[in-house]
Amino acid sequence: MNKYFAERVKPLKASAIREMFKLMADPEIISLAGGSPSPELFPSEELSKIAAKILMTNPNAALQYGTTDGYAPLKEIVADMVRKLGSLKETDSIIITTGGQQGIDLASKVFVNDGETVIVEAPSFVGTLNGLRAYQAKLVGVPLDDDGMNMEKLEQALESNKNVKLIYTIPTFQNPSGITMSLEKRKKLLDLARKYDVIVIEDNPYGYLRFSGEDVPTIKSLDTEGRVVYVGSFSKILSPGMRIGFTVADSKISDRIEVLKQVNDVHTPLLTQMMAVEYIKKYDMDEHIERCRKLYREKCEFMLSCMDKYFPKTVTYTRPQGGLFILCTTPEGTNTNELLLESLKYKVAFVPGNSFSTDIEKPSNLFRLNYSTMPNDKIEKGIKSLGQLLKEKLGN
Amino acid sequence: MNKYFAERVKPLKASAIREMFKLMADPEIISLAGGSPSPELFPSEELSKIAAKILMTNPNAALQYGTTDGYAPLKEIVADMVRKLGSLKETDSIIITTGGQQGIDLASKVFVNDGETVIVEAPSFVGTLNGLRAYQAKLVGVPLDDDGMNMEKLEQALESNKNVKLIYTIPTFQNPSGITMSLEKRKKLLDLARKYDVIVIEDNPYGYLRFSGEDVPTIKSLDTEGRVVYVGSFSKILSPGMRIGFTVADSKISDRIEVLKQVNDVHTPLLTQMMAVEYIKKYDMDEHIERCRKLYREKCEFMLSCMDKYFPKTVTYTRPQGGLFILCTTPEGTNTNELLLESLKYKVAFVPGNSFSTDIEKPSNLFRLNYSTMPNDKIEKGIKSLGQLLKEKLGN
Repeated sequence: MNKYFAERVKPLKASAIREMFKLMADPEIISLAGGSPSPELFPSEELSKIAAKILMTNPNAALQYGTTDGYAPLKEIVADMVRKLGSLKETDSIIITTGGQQGIDLASKVFVNDGETVIVEAPSFVGTLNGLRAYQAKLVGVPLDDDGMNMEKLEQALESNKNVKLIYTIPTFQNPSGITMSLEKRKKLLDLARKYDVIVIEDNPYGYLRFSGEDVPTIKSLDTEGRVVYVGSFSKILSPGMRIGFTVADSKISDRIEVLKQVNDVHTPLLTQMMAVEYIKKYDMDEHIERCRKLYREKCEFMLSCMDKYFPKTVTYTRPQGGLFILCTTPEGTNTNELLLESLKYKVAFVPGNSFSTDIEKPSNLFRLNYSTMPNDKIEKGIKSLGQLLKEKLGN
Repeated sequence: MNKYFAERVKPLKASAIREMFKLMADPEIISLAGGSPSPELFPSEELSKIAAKILMTNPNAALQYGTTDGYAPLKEIVADMVRKLGSLKETDSIIITTGGQQGIDLASKVFVNDGETVIVEAPSFVGTLNGLRAYQAKLVGVPLDDDGMNMEKLEQALESNKNVKLIYTIPTFQNPSGITMSLEKRKKLLDLARKYDVIVIEDNPYGYLRFSGEDVPTIKSLDTEGRVVYVGSFSKILSPGMRIGFTVADSKISDRIEVLKQVNDVHTPLLTQMMAVEYIKKYDMDEHIERCRKLYREKCEFMLSCMDKYFPKTVTYTRPQGGLFILCTTPEGTNTNELLLESLKYKVAFVPGNSFSTDIEKPSNLFRLNYSTMPNDKIEKGIKSLGQLLKEKLGN
């Protein structure tokens, strides 16, 4: 069958993370591998009432075809949200997408020709990397400092690679590192984007999940040229299963995203869009987000305290101010893929770093932990087992 | 901004039909341009109760991330449906998609390299044509006879074009023609696909909407080689706003579709998938489909009777046995784009044929009418006005 496939799909593999979800079906395994929000935060009773009411009072809007750009009242709500972040220019427009992933995929499709270079953080979000691979982009990774992409390395990458079309960044509570890019670096990134005349995709699914430190302005809010495509999501603050995200970009870019969305899924399902609107109108979203932050602060602090207690000194890790992830660094030469196989014997799962790499074949000494989904007793048990394994394998 | 865009999106235009939806906002316009099912068929009360119950009793399944291939109980239902059509082989698997459109888009992405040829019916569904344009396919149209694609012309197209990768067909109640391909031609199409070693995408959103004549086996059911990708949809038998479709294909193809779906929208929203499952389990889907058929039979017959009464002899049209569309042919040389501008003055809208053409710039003497959405009094009024215009412009 392989001979029929387009070149773009031949090198693609199913995301190791998504594949691992299947493995996680073993109820005994403590999965610190996921990226899901905590289900206890889902406002399911409220959404139940809202769904029933929408289908009784306004069924045709929910069940008939809708417009590709999204349900107008949801677009207004998103406009208010991004306006508050300073991320909405008068020349911008919004497209509601089927999750943030669709926003990234369609924005990539708008810009990237076969063989063009896309600069990403190293490590970066696997969904984006695979999406870009499907447009035959050449992926170039720029290492992360504690305050985001290394700017000297970014400039080198822009300088030394041919046909760089865009920079993809998750500047806030980055996946998989949890690192946030400083304001200074955000400005520098924009300067470099201007100097080398490239587009920026700013992916910000975790921005509302800050539980310590101060907010940093979005890159989009600093952009005066329409160079930044901003991708947002309701997955981490309302529900990922509803698949609601959005793009904010100069109207000329949004028009192209809309045309591609039209041929991709016509429009995002309407019931879920309408449910988001009614929930946000009827309930206090700020309060709900505060609940999310409080829970993730506790869980992150708890996991870090367990790691401080059980992990060997040979393993270092980030201390995020928000989001869902902690990135661990083991001594150079360690292959965290092999480590995972051992770890699964201990019934603990994490994501090895090569998944987040521009070169998935190359062994990585990084691995990602998630603190949002497991109850605290399982976090402790999992981290303790993992700590034991790490001490055995890597020394104390 | 244009200089940044990838080559693939530069030639794309928003679908004239979708753009027209915006124009249709004028409540005075009688739109015979749509392709929507009749809202009176939506089981909204049932779906309201179902949605409320799912979110009360099983909220985490509906609101958390799910698997890319789809909600397992829905996959089972779809398996039963396609098995009844003889369209499910043991080596096949199913992917639930965000509407049939996503199935077509992702299947196109799996197979079509830049510059490869895709053979389509002339005219064909605009959503597919634009989707294929975004993969820089060369589109070649094969004219339709009353019983589907002209097979001599199909063989000529396969013979004379370089790098033909696939044939895209809507064999049953084709959009925009309403024409159904005969069993003989389906077999011949498969023979030719084998002879020229190309893939077939069989798009069947309307198959359940037969209101006269006899069912014809799907092309998928005749395929013994895994050469056919079958795309189905719940849009025309349950609700388009829910955006639920599916692909059925050899597992090796389905795996590639799944990988692309993973980076496209991760998975189709779960609540709507679960609602479809509960509706189908709890209610009689066959009875519901029978209601759809009855209504569309009446509406199609009514529109045809109005056309027989009010249209000039210079205009001919198809008499479909199912689906949602009638295709009209005006004398050669007529430009139905110009005709539409006149028609909008009469407050009647239809879709001009060039939208469905491989060459949208070339004027077309075809136009499409839809009978599923307007009430009968408006159908009569609209057809009468349109008939008047046609007589004025084209003679009796």
